[in-house]
Parts: sequence; C-alpha cells; structure tokens
Amino acid sequence: MIRFSESAPYSPISYSYEIDKILYKKKTQYQEIIVVENPYFGRIMLLDGVVQVTERDEFFYHEMLTHIAMHAHPNPKNVVVIGGGDGGTVREVLRHQSVERVYFIEIDKEVINAARDFFPNVACCVDDPRVLIKPMDGALFVKEAKDVDLVIVDSTDIIGFAESLFSDNFFNAVKGCLTYNGIFVTHTESLHFHKKMVIEMQHRLKGTFPIVDLYAMPLATYPGNWWAFAIASLLVNPRETFRPCVTGTRYYDTEIHQQCFLTKGFYDRLINNRLDW
Amino acid sequence: MIRFSESAPYSPISYSYEIDKILYKKKTQYQEIIVVENPYFGRIMLLDGVVQVTERDEFFYHEMLTHIAMHAHPNPKNVVVIGGGDGGTVREVLRHQSVERVYFIEIDKEVINAARDFFPNVACCVDDPRVLIKPMDGALFVKEAKDVDLVIVDSTDIIGFAESLFSDNFFNAVKGCLTYNGIFVTHTESLHFHKKMVIEMQHRLKGTFPIVDLYAMPLATYPGNWWAFAIASLLVNPRETFRPCVTGTRYYDTEIHQQCFLTKGFYDRLINNRLDW
Repeated sequence: MIRFSESAPYSPISYSYEIDKILYKKKTQYQEIIVVENPYFGRIMLLDGVVQVTERDEFFYHEMLTHIAMHAHPNPKNVVVIGGGDGGTVREVLRHQSVERVYFIEIDKEVINAARDFFPNVACCVDDPRVLIKPMDGALFVKEAKDVDLVIVDSTDIIGFAESLFSDNFFNAVKGCLTYNGIFVTHTESLHFHKKMVIEMQHRLKGTFPIVDLYAMPLATYPGNWWAFAIASLLVNPRETFRPCVTGTRYYDTEIHQQCFLTKGFYDRLINNRLDW
Repeated sequence: MIRFSESAPYSPISYSYEIDKILYKKKTQYQEIIVVENPYFGRIMLLDGVVQVTERDEFFYHEMLTHIAMHAHPNPKNVVVIGGGDGGTVREVLRHQSVERVYFIEIDKEVINAARDFFPNVACCVDDPRVLIKPMDGALFVKEAKDVDLVIVDSTDIIGFAESLFSDNFFNAVKGCLTYNGIFVTHTESLHFHKKMVIEMQHRLKGTFPIVDLYAMPLATYPGNWWAFAIASLLVNPRETFRPCVTGTRYYDTEIHQQCFLTKGFYDRLINNRLDW
C-alpha cells in the first residue's frame, strides 16, 4: 500500500492517507501541486504537501466558509474571493442570486487549472460569466478595490506565503474596500491545535473592525479538525441570517448558522485566555 | 524521531504521533496496554494500538460523555460506568454531590492499574469510597443491576470486544436496571467516518427507549473527530439541564450543553438517510 504523510505546519498529529494513484504533480512559481486518488476521499489536492481539498468532504469547508457571511449580508452583489483556487468557494457564492460579480483572486492560476481538470464538481463555476479571475496577490487587490460587499479569504495555512493575508495592513485594506454592510471572513486554523493563532486573529481583527466573531466546524481532513472561522463586519451581526437558506447546500442551513458560533461564555473564556488547554 | 501510527478500525486517515519514550507495555488477558510520552499531548494510553486517552485533551471527551446525562438528570445517586478504566469518567461523575455510589465496571483491571500509575490526574477518584470497582463484563453487570440512575458506556470502539455493549440485548438490560428518571449514554464513533454506525445505534436505541437523542463534539485524537454520543432515556429530555453546572469543568457548561445537540433539521436528515456523504 502506498501512503503519503501530510506535512501540515504545527500539527502534533501527522495524518497519512492511502494512495491508489498519483494523478498530477507540478511545481509552479509558488508551490507544488499534487493530486492523488484515495479509496475513501476520492481525489485529494495537496499544496506543498498539505491537504487542501478532497472530493468527499470539501463541501463542509466550502459551505461553512461561505454561507455564514453570505446569509448574514442583506444583499451581497460584489464578492471578493482570495485564494480558493479549487473553485469550491466561488461555487457556493454563486448559489446566491443577488451576486453580480465575483472577483476571484487566486495568485497561482495553475491551481485553478488543476481543479478544472481533476475536480470538475468543485471548479464547476470558475468560468461562469459573473466570475472575474485575477491571478494576483489578494493583499494588493483589496488595496485598490471599492464597493465590495464581502471579502472571503480561502487561503493556505497562516504560516507560509499566505501570511500577508493575516496582517493588520491587510485587515485595514479589507475594511477600506467594504461597503457599510460589508463582511469579512477567513479561516483561522484549529481550536484544538492552534488556539493561540485563533485568539491572536480575533484580537487583531478587533483592532480594525467594530464587530468580530468566531464560529467553528469539525473538519476531518484539516489537522486539529475543530476548524475556526473569523468573521468581521462594520455593522452587520453575523450571527443573524438575513435571508432564507439558499438551495443546494448539503450541510449548511439556518439552524447550523445559529449553532456554529461559539457560545458567549466559551468565546469570553477563549478571548481572555481563561481556557487552560 | 520515533513515531507510532495508530491502528484504529475503519479510519481512512492514519494518525501518527511522535514518541519521546515508551513508559509501559503489557499484554493482559484482554488487550495490549501501552503508555507513551508525546511532546504535545503528554502521556498517551493505547489499547490494542488505538489511542484511548491523552493527558492534554482527555477532559473534552470525559466531560462531554459524562455531564450531559448528569445535568439532565434531576438527582443522580447511583451511577454505572462501564469501561473507562482510566478513571476520567468516574472523576467527572463525582463532581456531582448527589452521587452516592459509582459502580465502576471495567473488565480489565490492568487498565485501572496503569492509569493509577501513569495518569494520576485522570485516575484521581477511582479509589474514592463511593466507587465500587468490579472487574467484569458490563453487559453481565447491568442484567443483575437495579435502581440505577445513569448508565455511562466509556468503551473501546464498537468493533472489537466491546461489541456486546452495542447490542439490543444490552440496551434492554440497561433499560431494565434504570429508575424512571434514568438515562443511558454511550459514544457511537464519528459522524465523519462512521455515519452508518451512528445512525444504526440511534435506530436500535429507539427500539428500546422512548427518548433517544444525539450530540457531538470535535475531538482531535479520535479518528474522524466529529465524535457522536448517543443518549437515551425513559422520561427525561436530555437537551434540558436540570441543575446548575458543577464546578471544575474545563469545557462543559450550560451553554455548551444546549449547543452540542444536533439541530432538529440535521438530526432528521441524518436519521432518515438524507445526508449524501
């Protein structure tokens, strides 16, 4: 049996997967893309040795990253997706009929190409006429952007070349490009394994945005699993849903929206460093 | 670097851990016990190659297995703990001052001994005068038991020699030993990796108990992570808490109690096999 062991940063458990076949391998200007076939998860895409997406369970992550912010916004028209080259986030954004334009800012266009070839059900919407693909640094894009309703960061881990997407400069630029109803959402690693990072990102975002919150979801293929999503806005309360649930989701719904946020007490204990783990 | 790879049944991801030192290794009549030292999790106990408990994160599992049922019961006095040889569940049960007697039914007394020696903070209450240790098969014990307020199953995986603790015969015997306010709780593996088992256990329990429910919690060291707990009762609604939260818990509280249950919609979709993963 051939296996690969994931080389995720700061993971005290190493996850390894059986491989039936290596389907694709390419060193791009930014990273190494590998696509393998696994008997349980189907196709898996790795970037620099870290699992990004699997056919079987990608919908959990993409739905939870996207739909909380989308349903909390009264009328999202212009959406910026940074990273997410596999196209899963773009697919979820386009379930919302209000959306007129998706700025799809993936620095490495080879990831989009690999997804088109090997993950047709994930990349199904990347060539939709509402999608404008821009292979550039997301931090540069938001500096110049205007009238954006939502910014969604679907990047690789915080440690690595996505680091600029977790800086105060970036958060300020995001705030500057948003409309008054605007919302920003990003993953911030695992509550089990990267609690310090989760807390740091909450504090940093509070330096920029008046409303900052945190929700989580258990994801089997990301180390630590208890995956945290930071969400920030100028005005809107992200815990409330503004519109009925879109059709086509497999996990997300209005009840899940309300359930996934950290309880008030747990959030307080987390932020004030009163959790002893 | 020395590592071990876990041999958990039915896990499509293999978890491996760094080992600083092997502290203990013993083949008992029932299984192989190993205790190792890991730089992140501290001491880890494995039974037949499967991680059962780590010093760092054991409290998540033990609190969530124990306190939902304990707080849903109006006045738990006699509690049966089946398995859980490390003592973590017994420790949590004894946080409740109403408790007069804990029947601690661990078939393999060598597990309790290893926990006494290597996990003093987990096994701290196993020699409390309210605890009656009985090294026997839990299925046999409940057949003869009476006036029990709570039965908690803290066993190894469903597949393996704990199988008898997930049978209709066992569920009927549990029902027979409970008082009218009685509650039964057991883990039923992962919603990500063992969804069929989770569903099957809900259906089977519904054949015996009028009230059956399901809650979940992300646990980093159990494969699939999104760990499910089946809870059943004759009368009591396990979603409601009867008494204020005990002191000393690190994760569990009244808000977590309410949050951890599956939403009504998700539960319906799960049970009726309308989740396509």
